[in-house]
Amino acid sequence: MKIGIDAMGGDFAPDAIIEGAVNAASQLPPDIHIVLIGKQDVINALLEKYNYQGSQIEVVHAEEVVEMGEHPTKALSQKPHSSISIGFKLLKDKQLDIFCGAGNTGAMHVGALFSIKAIEGIIRPAIVGFVPQKKGGHAVMLDIGANADCKPEVLEQFGVIGSIFAQQTFQIERPRVALMNIGEEEQKGSVVAQAAHQLLKDNTRIHFVGNMEGGDMFDDKADVIVTDGFTGNALFKLAESFYDVAKERGIQDDFIDKMNYESVGGSSIIGVNGNVMIAHGISSAIAIKNMITWARKQVESHAYVQIAKALS
Amino acid sequence: MKIGIDAMGGDFAPDAIIEGAVNAASQLPPDIHIVLIGKQDVINALLEKYNYQGSQIEVVHAEEVVEMGEHPTKALSQKPHSSISIGFKLLKDKQLDIFCGAGNTGAMHVGALFSIKAIEGIIRPAIVGFVPQKKGGHAVMLDIGANADCKPEVLEQFGVIGSIFAQQTFQIERPRVALMNIGEEEQKGSVVAQAAHQLLKDNTRIHFVGNMEGGDMFDDKADVIVTDGFTGNALFKLAESFYDVAKERGIQDDFIDKMNYESVGGSSIIGVNGNVMIAHGISSAIAIKNMITWARKQVESHAYVQIAKALS
Repeated sequence: MKIGIDAMGGDFAPDAIIEGAVNAASQLPPDIHIVLIGKQDVINALLEKYNYQGSQIEVVHAEEVVEMGEHPTKALSQKPHSSISIGFKLLKDKQLDIFCGAGNTGAMHVGALFSIKAIEGIIRPAIVGFVPQKKGGHAVMLDIGANADCKPEVLEQFGVIGSIFAQQTFQIERPRVALMNIGEEEQKGSVVAQAAHQLLKDNTRIHFVGNMEGGDMFDDKADVIVTDGFTGNALFKLAESFYDVAKERGIQDDFIDKMNYESVGGSSIIGVNGNVMIAHGISSAIAIKNMITWARKQVESHAYVQIAKALS
Repeated sequence: MKIGIDAMGGDFAPDAIIEGAVNAASQLPPDIHIVLIGKQDVINALLEKYNYQGSQIEVVHAEEVVEMGEHPTKALSQKPHSSISIGFKLLKDKQLDIFCGAGNTGAMHVGALFSIKAIEGIIRPAIVGFVPQKKGGHAVMLDIGANADCKPEVLEQFGVIGSIFAQQTFQIERPRVALMNIGEEEQKGSVVAQAAHQLLKDNTRIHFVGNMEGGDMFDDKADVIVTDGFTGNALFKLAESFYDVAKERGIQDDFIDKMNYESVGGSSIIGVNGNVMIAHGISSAIAIKNMITWARKQVESHAYVQIAKALS
């Protein structure tokens, strides 16, 4: 397996990326390789700094870097030799099993759509966030930011692809799918949420358990939380901030620690023909290391293959 | 001042309501009266149970009760002698300065619209939630559930009326107004959020400070958080659930305690011609007591009078 990482993406890149990769490499079985994509000399100097002696980390040179503030589509067309462009080229050519990056989120998203492309039949690919559950494990929530406006049919499809993703990632036979809403009764919510509720309820491919509310997010009411990318993004960021509140208040707690963005380290783009994970711009070495662990799981889950099968 | 309370509304009514009112009464100055509306004999028996001997609590008999599951509009028209109907009648007739209830939220909302009515010029009244801030005090967030779908002009008006409400409630001269969104840049977000951003930015009556994200909710970035009732409801309930997580984990912390719904005990309906507060169905005696404290503040703030002036 080859896990590709954009070595140049993120506020603390390339240093934090290389450190995270070196720490991850020491814990991976020998057949799993990490491919660092970026400025070769810079990466090599950092591999030396972090005293890396092994053979599981490879370096692929990329001359250019997409900066955080750049316009995604423009940047990718003007910088074909950027680490993001090259990463997606390698992914498309099956020289990588997954491509991960903590850089410009828009460019990662557009890069995925332009290279490996959306799976046929997918209305909108989505970003899946992992939400820790009180009783252990995670639920997946989608979308957490790719699509601020979602039609009911898009939310319905999130239910279907989120269900397959949860099935494959967590080995759950019949994932429970819930719709984020502002009341439990089916006639509650926005016009879109009401219509989506009916579509999800009538969809025989999923196990729809009804609406859930913001306060239920950690309560193991569902394995898949369906929501538009506006609500999902706001909720996900608020949940992450709870860890920051606890930390500032000197509170250490195993469950709250799981709300730390570093704990999973990344979110998956699903609905595309391949494996892609994106991470926070602020990603630390720990976050990168943990993302690599999840990246491996995602490759092994074959979720995107199953999603493509289900839609064909 | 007369603070009216629906004695029959809420999962633990009338017991919790009476207990909360008795506890509040002992701490209020003598010129502030609590008016309990509901079944007289039941209320009197409970006043005896809680050993109430004073003269600040009055009882107004109401023969009927609107149940939690009832359709708001139907219930109010079919039950003119319900505690909610009578409460709003007294409020309209200025025999109450504020009416508070923990019963059927929809009926409280419809009751306000049918009796004291929306202020002229108000597109949509909103429910205002109080969000504790790390540096102390609260921000107000609106809407937290009355309007699941909001047009940009409605969000703009939430900025204006929220600003006046914060001004009057917290004595802030120039409240900072922020728009809940999924990025800081003004071109970010849903179609509605992008349009609302422009309207808020161009509105000279408010001090608009731009977008904020879900993770900023406790960070004192704004005094007024503008959002639609769908996103606002989900975020507010998630924030409240942090307290539950902490409690279940055996964590006691002064700041997290403020996220407990009991801490303020209620939310205000604004944009109507009078003072109305609504509370959680699950309201405990402590929540009711604290709501009465805030109800007093709201009456003293004269916020609704100032909102009406600003719109006239």
